[in-house]
Amino acid sequence: MTFDPRYFPPDPWAVHETEFRQDLLAQTESIFALANGHLGLRGNLDEGEPRMLSGTYLNGLYESYMLEYGERGFGFAEDGQAVVNVTDGKIIRLLVEDAPFDIHRGRLESHERTLDFRTGILTRDARWRSEAGNAVRVISERLVSFVDRSVAAIRYQVEALERPLRIAIQSNLQANQTDRPGGADPRAGKALGDVLDSVMHIDHGLRVVLVHRTKQSGLAFAAGMEHVIECESHATTLTQCEEDLGRVTIAVALQPGERVCVTKLLAYHWSGHQSTEWLRDQVDASLETALAQGWDELAQRQKAYLDEYWEAADIEVDGDPELQQALRFAQFHLLQASARAETRAIAAKGLTGPGYDGHAFWDTEAFVLPVLMHTFPRAARDALRWRHRILPLARERAQQLQLKGAAMPWRTIHGEECSGYWPAGTAAFHINADIAWAVQRYVQATGDEDFERTEGLELLVESARLWAHLGHFGADDRFHIHGVTGPDEYSALVDDNVYTNLMAARNLASAADAASRYRREAAALGVVADEIAHWQRAAEAISVPFDERLGVHAQDQDFLTHDVWDFDHTPPDHYPLLLHYPYFELYRKQVVKQSDLVLALHLCGDAFSVEEKRAAFDYYEALTVRDSSLSACTQSVIAAEVGHLDLAYEYLAEAALMDIHDLNHNTADGVHIASLGGAVIAVIAGLGGTREFNNQITFRPRLPDGLDGITFNVSTRGARLRVQVRHEEATYEVRAGGPVTIGHHGDAVEIAAGNPVTLEIPALPDIPPAPRQPPGCEPKVRRKRL
Amino acid sequence: MTFDPRYFPPDPWAVHETEFRQDLLAQTESIFALANGHLGLRGNLDEGEPRMLSGTYLNGLYESYMLEYGERGFGFAEDGQAVVNVTDGKIIRLLVEDAPFDIHRGRLESHERTLDFRTGILTRDARWRSEAGNAVRVISERLVSFVDRSVAAIRYQVEALERPLRIAIQSNLQANQTDRPGGADPRAGKALGDVLDSVMHIDHGLRVVLVHRTKQSGLAFAAGMEHVIECESHATTLTQCEEDLGRVTIAVALQPGERVCVTKLLAYHWSGHQSTEWLRDQVDASLETALAQGWDELAQRQKAYLDEYWEAADIEVDGDPELQQALRFAQFHLLQASARAETRAIAAKGLTGPGYDGHAFWDTEAFVLPVLMHTFPRAARDALRWRHRILPLARERAQQLQLKGAAMPWRTIHGEECSGYWPAGTAAFHINADIAWAVQRYVQATGDEDFERTEGLELLVESARLWAHLGHFGADDRFHIHGVTGPDEYSALVDDNVYTNLMAARNLASAADAASRYRREAAALGVVADEIAHWQRAAEAISVPFDERLGVHAQDQDFLTHDVWDFDHTPPDHYPLLLHYPYFELYRKQVVKQSDLVLALHLCGDAFSVEEKRAAFDYYEALTVRDSSLSACTQSVIAAEVGHLDLAYEYLAEAALMDIHDLNHNTADGVHIASLGGAVIAVIAGLGGTREFNNQITFRPRLPDGLDGITFNVSTRGARLRVQVRHEEATYEVRAGGPVTIGHHGDAVEIAAGNPVTLEIPALPDIPPAPRQPPGCEPKVRRKRL
Repeated sequence: MTFDPRYFPPDPWAVHETEFRQDLLAQTESIFALANGHLGLRGNLDEGEPRMLSGTYLNGLYESYMLEYGERGFGFAEDGQAVVNVTDGKIIRLLVEDAPFDIHRGRLESHERTLDFRTGILTRDARWRSEAGNAVRVISERLVSFVDRSVAAIRYQVEALERPLRIAIQSNLQANQTDRPGGADPRAGKALGDVLDSVMHIDHGLRVVLVHRTKQSGLAFAAGMEHVIECESHATTLTQCEEDLGRVTIAVALQPGERVCVTKLLAYHWSGHQSTEWLRDQVDASLETALAQGWDELAQRQKAYLDEYWEAADIEVDGDPELQQALRFAQFHLLQASARAETRAIAAKGLTGPGYDGHAFWDTEAFVLPVLMHTFPRAARDALRWRHRILPLARERAQQLQLKGAAMPWRTIHGEECSGYWPAGTAAFHINADIAWAVQRYVQATGDEDFERTEGLELLVESARLWAHLGHFGADDRFHIHGVTGPDEYSALVDDNVYTNLMAARNLASAADAASRYRREAAALGVVADEIAHWQRAAEAISVPFDERLGVHAQDQDFLTHDVWDFDHTPPDHYPLLLHYPYFELYRKQVVKQSDLVLALHLCGDAFSVEEKRAAFDYYEALTVRDSSLSACTQSVIAAEVGHLDLAYEYLAEAALMDIHDLNHNTADGVHIASLGGAVIAVIAGLGGTREFNNQITFRPRLPDGLDGITFNVSTRGARLRVQVRHEEATYEVRAGGPVTIGHHGDAVEIAAGNPVTLEIPALPDIPPAPRQPPGCEPKVRRKRL
Repeated sequence: MTFDPRYFPPDPWAVHETEFRQDLLAQTESIFALANGHLGLRGNLDEGEPRMLSGTYLNGLYESYMLEYGERGFGFAEDGQAVVNVTDGKIIRLLVEDAPFDIHRGRLESHERTLDFRTGILTRDARWRSEAGNAVRVISERLVSFVDRSVAAIRYQVEALERPLRIAIQSNLQANQTDRPGGADPRAGKALGDVLDSVMHIDHGLRVVLVHRTKQSGLAFAAGMEHVIECESHATTLTQCEEDLGRVTIAVALQPGERVCVTKLLAYHWSGHQSTEWLRDQVDASLETALAQGWDELAQRQKAYLDEYWEAADIEVDGDPELQQALRFAQFHLLQASARAETRAIAAKGLTGPGYDGHAFWDTEAFVLPVLMHTFPRAARDALRWRHRILPLARERAQQLQLKGAAMPWRTIHGEECSGYWPAGTAAFHINADIAWAVQRYVQATGDEDFERTEGLELLVESARLWAHLGHFGADDRFHIHGVTGPDEYSALVDDNVYTNLMAARNLASAADAASRYRREAAALGVVADEIAHWQRAAEAISVPFDERLGVHAQDQDFLTHDVWDFDHTPPDHYPLLLHYPYFELYRKQVVKQSDLVLALHLCGDAFSVEEKRAAFDYYEALTVRDSSLSACTQSVIAAEVGHLDLAYEYLAEAALMDIHDLNHNTADGVHIASLGGAVIAVIAGLGGTREFNNQITFRPRLPDGLDGITFNVSTRGARLRVQVRHEEATYEVRAGGPVTIGHHGDAVEIAAGNPVTLEIPALPDIPPAPRQPPGCEPKVRRKRL
């Protein structure tokens, strides 16, 4: 089921639904999910059911299981890790004169839900009439605190309408819920069954704390709830507690128009090493702190936190309210995925669903951190610190594979390689260069030399060591990297993937540069002059296959010799191809799942001339089917660069609408954090034309006809710039730090704080028409073409 | 544990052990296994224990299980199949004055076992003294009948030595034994646990029949035993029968020197469609037939069958008794694996153990059938008929993979693809060309045009259709085949693997040729003139990568650009490499598990000049680690062709001694049928220099210094030739059919029946010294080098 594009009215600061749609339940659970990077609650209905997937996640808390193989090989990942649906504190069940408030029974007279990006609160407002004709209004507000990382809160109000009603409210903590997804789609998560062993269950007054431990991974966590009841009439309460259930029941008789208001405070703590007693203490302390604040203060601090975020992060779009909403939705979920992750990973689905088992991939470094380093640099730094924290595991993995340096896991929660299919996992070594690139870019955006000298340097050095070992000098004296998989997962185990090679060369060069600048720290890591020289030589000699006959860069050494995929005979229902064709067939044909060479055109854009970019974009555009959500944004960036502004706009919209239009039909498993990041990149680097090569920030902004303006924020060496783009001109304003020398369509201009500069945008030169996509793979037209 | 090379004294017609070695138990279970291609019994001791693996196998009877994957992909094989250890009828337990005859207790005063290649009987002769000092002699003889395919028999005699003894003999039928191997070695079989459900258990007199069905695959089989007791003293008997056990107990008091002789007759029938009642009837009938013959007639007919076989198959070697024994051992096991397989597969381990789960691979067509078509053509035809029988499944598989024609399974028992690792399974499409090659070669050896016109033609056509679809014409107008895996499993998913391309071209050309000759039959298969023309064009335009710089053929398009494996830093205990390095590392380096390009030099030898062969052999010899048992034989063939006769001899010996010296440390799981076939090939095609291109049989025989002579048999167009090679001359004798025009070192000579021709062998021209192998991978020196 896909969305009617107008399902969510285009509110610039909220996602708002005005009817209940059972067929969109799973998607709205993801879209209305609340999280702070540490704790995530899916947007389940308060009463718990109907639901597709109940979800409460703690970043880093996973269950492990043995990975099975039809035929095992040396070095195959041994254990899988899957995010755990922990104890559910969202559930508040309601009985109205003994009739359960179940929207499948009686009559739902109205239903509205709103996720407000400025308050960070999910509000529900429903009127319901039981089969017996008793009507109530239920208003619930829910937040996961950005300020208090362990805390969530729900304010739940019930009003009797028309006549006096006896109301019972059951507020639950429920462990070992069982509704994980299954099926053949490899992108969904793994069903593990009950994975929680009860350790402790305690109640005092209106408070219950349950402590559990995961069966295999042995990670302990405590979940607690506390309640504040406000009502003019007297409410009676009952508190019960079992191994997998905590329950506070509140019974009250309401007069017509009278409300009962229950504030439910939730706290979660987990650890791999703390005692369960200590965890329980922490939960009680968090609940006490939350209780002291009460709903109003929690909500007010939430708002203040978000005000600060939007000041630095906001993107304004004039002329396309739907896109405006989608971009704020994207920025809101980026914050939710990362804000308080601290030294945990930012997962592909954030904390919004079990998709991809809750794993983090290279998307974080390639599509999420490039946004956060401009809009919320602390979270970008924390994510890179997480990479530093898992370096020992990555070194161990490299050793196991008989390699040098550190080999980062392709997918993981805790740091061990969890990829169960190595040709599109372990072999995708580019992740190591992606991380190094993010390190270097983070330092450039923030000027955080402390990080560069310490964790950053070590990440650069260990990944450079890996590349130095992975590559070899061929008979042609070029440095080659063979047998790896690039970003395009419809190719695998190729020689000299251009993206990988260029990124590896940058990794080697930036490690050499950093090691030369931080000699003492590099020496402590065992770096010697010869090693630096070798890195430099390898970086300079990197092989970059180019096909003279076709006049385009080859995605890899052999790519352009392959047969072209038979797009004309590929039925529309055979997309995504990976669900209908074997890897065998995909790998040996010219067909591209997601931008690969085109991503190199962006991230390593200074290695290509404009003509090369145009030729490559045209060529690969005709082969790219976008079976990955990580493609449209990059196509948008390069489409903009080579002057296809309408196409850039269409791809930007596709990336931004990925979830609120459920374009890939799997928003049910969680939102696509990297695509949402990619949408922001498509604004900043695409239409905004922002580039950051050689420590210089440059802009070549240009708008498509369909938009009237965009405004975005970027950081460079710690200074913050706001860029406002109109059709004829762009205005650059330094909002913090500075002055900053920028490039604007090739001209260097210095911008000082308090002195915005407006510059003319040169007319777009005549360019050939935009290339065609494979039949059926065209992006959705965003405006009437002339 | 490996064998002392002199563990088996070099008897020319038998394998003989004279001591009991617990540490070699598993290997001797494989080596002393008896089979007829339909029924196989591992060489377990009569009393059942000690044992490493008990094994009783029925060709084609398998259990299926779901193949698990860390990450599943479209088209991955869904179900595994594993050979089943069926009801064990070998067990005969003995009690001597109530002390169990257990060679771990009391004292084994003598122990001998002999597997006689001429009688086809495994004999054991043991003297044992119990802890109480009571001595017996036990003589057992065991055969699996080549004549009566369902029948095995054991003649078991016990003699009281020194004093009168009460003897009890328990003859068992035991189902659901549990001692399957496990561990991480992917070459061992899969442990499935109890897989047999009892359907029926019946006894009459001294007969018991048990009927079982496999749990998942639902295949039914019946096993029965019948007994004949001969003894001067009176024996009492008891027959018992349970679901998983049949038992006949024979008690007798023997005087010193007196013997009791029990002849145990066994019969097995299985089916995927017959009723269990019918299966039981068949077992009773087979037992009755065996009973009517008695041991002596069964043994005599076994001998007659083998006499005929050896007359057509025997290889004589002068000057190396160990090699003589090994080659007869090889030929005996080749017969055992295939004789009565009829339309079932010939598995990699025959019916001697659970290795590779009992699957058949390409080895059958490439290394076993090329022998059988000369020595036992009926079995070669039957094996190809099995391929024809599974064509519907292969067509279905091709369709599933969105391919045309038929895609044969890489590994299977029943016909479905069971490969759990597709890059070294499904992607190894060369198996289809190997089968087509075997079809064409079988017809050439036998002149069996009936087969060619029917099953043969269809096999050629369907595989040609696959290649026509798999390949494409490149910008260079050559026909390319991309993304496949060749024979060398240390490379995968490569472009233009020379072996695959040349074999595919032959497949296309022979399909075109056969379809042109059998027009009506081809038309019935839907073949049209355009299709034939396309096959011919593709075959003629096949791409064969050659490196001008190095002056050698490339194993595949990119192989020679890869970094060379660092052999100098590979510790000796890191072989086989696949157990110590990830595929990732193996695939991207120049390192060869097993002959690949060198196999092309043999099978497609007419596509290369002698100089090209010499250059290629030298180059690849330095990269080939022989981590597969399918390599030495091919290296022997080409070493001989390019004049390195000592090296050819060493590789021949390695192939032949694979099992009786347990060179790869996994004879425990079963003997290596293809390596044993390869040893025979190394005689016929290697030292014998036999080639069969363009419907011509040619010879370039030459002996190494270490041998005085070899004699072997070959067939061509149904005529049978015996070739006797001495250092200076070779004698060609037509033994059936003829006359035959042969080539002898370049001269064409006609040989007529009854008129042997002796021809001089020209002196070996001066050649450069033999190439070196990777350090530590040298074959064992077979003679003192001068």
